[in-house]
Amino acid sequence: MKQKKINIGLFGFGTVGKGLYDVLQRIQPQNVKIVSVCVEDITKKRDADIPFTNRADDIFNNKDINFIVELINDAEAAYKIVKRALVAGIPVVSGNKRMLAYHIMELIKLQEQYNTPLLYDASACGSIPVIRNLEEYYDNDLLISIKGILNGSSNFILSKIFNEGMNYDDSLRLAQELGFAESNPTFDIEGWDSLFKLIIITVHAFGVYVPPKDVLNVGIGHMNSYDIQFANEKGRRIKLVGSAEKMDDKLVLSVMPQLISRQKYIYSVEDEFNGVVIKGLFYYKQFMFGQGAGGHPTGSAVLSDITAQLYDYKYEYKKLNSRQHPHYTTDITFRIYFRFTNEEDQSLLDFESTSERYLSANYKYVVGDISLAQLIEKVDMLREKDVFIAAYPHD
Amino acid sequence: MKQKKINIGLFGFGTVGKGLYDVLQRIQPQNVKIVSVCVEDITKKRDADIPFTNRADDIFNNKDINFIVELINDAEAAYKIVKRALVAGIPVVSGNKRMLAYHIMELIKLQEQYNTPLLYDASACGSIPVIRNLEEYYDNDLLISIKGILNGSSNFILSKIFNEGMNYDDSLRLAQELGFAESNPTFDIEGWDSLFKLIIITVHAFGVYVPPKDVLNVGIGHMNSYDIQFANEKGRRIKLVGSAEKMDDKLVLSVMPQLISRQKYIYSVEDEFNGVVIKGLFYYKQFMFGQGAGGHPTGSAVLSDITAQLYDYKYEYKKLNSRQHPHYTTDITFRIYFRFTNEEDQSLLDFESTSERYLSANYKYVVGDISLAQLIEKVDMLREKDVFIAAYPHD
Repeated sequence: MKQKKINIGLFGFGTVGKGLYDVLQRIQPQNVKIVSVCVEDITKKRDADIPFTNRADDIFNNKDINFIVELINDAEAAYKIVKRALVAGIPVVSGNKRMLAYHIMELIKLQEQYNTPLLYDASACGSIPVIRNLEEYYDNDLLISIKGILNGSSNFILSKIFNEGMNYDDSLRLAQELGFAESNPTFDIEGWDSLFKLIIITVHAFGVYVPPKDVLNVGIGHMNSYDIQFANEKGRRIKLVGSAEKMDDKLVLSVMPQLISRQKYIYSVEDEFNGVVIKGLFYYKQFMFGQGAGGHPTGSAVLSDITAQLYDYKYEYKKLNSRQHPHYTTDITFRIYFRFTNEEDQSLLDFESTSERYLSANYKYVVGDISLAQLIEKVDMLREKDVFIAAYPHD
Repeated sequence: MKQKKINIGLFGFGTVGKGLYDVLQRIQPQNVKIVSVCVEDITKKRDADIPFTNRADDIFNNKDINFIVELINDAEAAYKIVKRALVAGIPVVSGNKRMLAYHIMELIKLQEQYNTPLLYDASACGSIPVIRNLEEYYDNDLLISIKGILNGSSNFILSKIFNEGMNYDDSLRLAQELGFAESNPTFDIEGWDSLFKLIIITVHAFGVYVPPKDVLNVGIGHMNSYDIQFANEKGRRIKLVGSAEKMDDKLVLSVMPQLISRQKYIYSVEDEFNGVVIKGLFYYKQFMFGQGAGGHPTGSAVLSDITAQLYDYKYEYKKLNSRQHPHYTTDITFRIYFRFTNEEDQSLLDFESTSERYLSANYKYVVGDISLAQLIEKVDMLREKDVFIAAYPHD
């Protein structure tokens, strides 16, 4: 039994930071403790018996601290903390998916340069160990795709709509009341959270980094009651899906609402849960399912990242280092459902072909094939319009 | 990028051995190859372009071989091969769950003594990386229970019965035709396969080894149409479930048929799939689901064990080495459904209390509470009788 002790300097004491504190209080491990916590507002009353500071230097200059855990919201501040820790040779765990999605390649280099590990399993899918499994287990060339529900808040809202017939506004309000959605829910609802997780996952799954701006990201904020009705009539549910799929030597990425049929595993992923389907050449499909949000599930995932350090675990980035990678492409066509309210918006998208077209006073839609490249090009413009887009797979 | 090369001496070329060969043929890795295969019957025609031998010495004395993969059925022969490899300092992968369930503690000591790794993720749940996740990720004190469908063949049969109304004999025959069940299906049907997996999983989940003979093992071989009808009337399905559950500082293990209600995750695990529910104090439930049998899924799991060696991975047996373990107990009561055909068999079991009792000419049953210790004591005797037992949880 190794005698290594982890003395944590913690940045941030929001939902996840407090969750980590609670988990440690409950299990009282002998070799892991929080020494000090750095927060923005030190005057705020907090229910925790540990020293708080508002100066990062107090953490980095504390000789008792040999480990940094970064759980703050501000991505740029998180980047500075993680970078400073790596350069100082202090192992660090981060939960900031936005920061990682933008800076992961530089942070990988810094890990190597300073021989210091950065772990971040907790950043993608909360309590489900997706990154570690992609890194350690699905590490041969058999991986075909990874698709799933990567955001708990938006899935909670969609579940209430499709299972309980709630309307969008009420379900969003309920999600906020229960702490699953922020007061500004854009990050979850508009797909950004899913997108950042997908970027991180893709590095570990396929060894390919694609900047967030190059990937299609469509959220569920524009969905209306006609869209819900359309899905119900087809026996499908709308889910917000992140997808990374290898096709020959090409790689296709997207985050968008999808009309999911009943026989798909992710059809049944409900409430604030996340579910990921990993498809391989020889093992058909694997499905991992668990709580993707919340202080305690994510806090215990952070603790798994921390205790991995007791055994000197680090990501090997096996796929990044392998000789062959698929090439990211947007030159691919898929079928979408495109709903618009104003008739002139029909011409916003150039379909390669259409199979359905419906026009009435209040509800108009087209089902047709369109290229991913075109959707990416037009997605910012579409966000300004009263339109809704969802993938509508043939299956 | 490390330049380590793995040159395999393979024992066994049955379903999984051939599966591994196929997977390697398909992906053609640069640093993994099969050098030679040892089989019992060297005269049998095999569709593979590699040297075969029937002498273990040819493998162990081959200087080109630096890795042993053991995929044979005979548990005692497998034990000798694995032991010999470890003593010789050759890393080894085994898929033999029966052998591991009996010899795991000695093999752990040998790994340490000879500083040589033995990996066997493929032995439990085929393509689902259960052991590695328990070892690496769920490694703090938060784990409460692991329950699941650990055997694909029996689950295939139960699925055909409950989903398609097939009878037992037809569904067994179909399972055999499709290669999911052996010509002698006792190993799968009577729970042994699930039991051995549960023993291995428990070592990694809770750091506790319990010999197979001390654990309740009841199969589905005695199930008849009345039992199926009973389950259907209650809106439940019969599933063969392996369970390891911590209750305070106690640990309860069992393999037995269970009447599973619709809201449980494992209710929907169908056909030859395995599904494992991991429950923790802070992350509620996680569910892992995938193909648990078949040459290609298991072959690719074996390959994951092999390639882990490229990065010097070994099990740390963190929980075995930790300071506290739960104590295995059989002093626990649970509700069962007990069906018997001959009225005198009613007195075979002493129930602490009964809540239902039904007697007719052809069908008789009792629902009641009984101790695990008594079931273990009487299970061998019950196998000789025309009776069926299933756990009937209250949920």
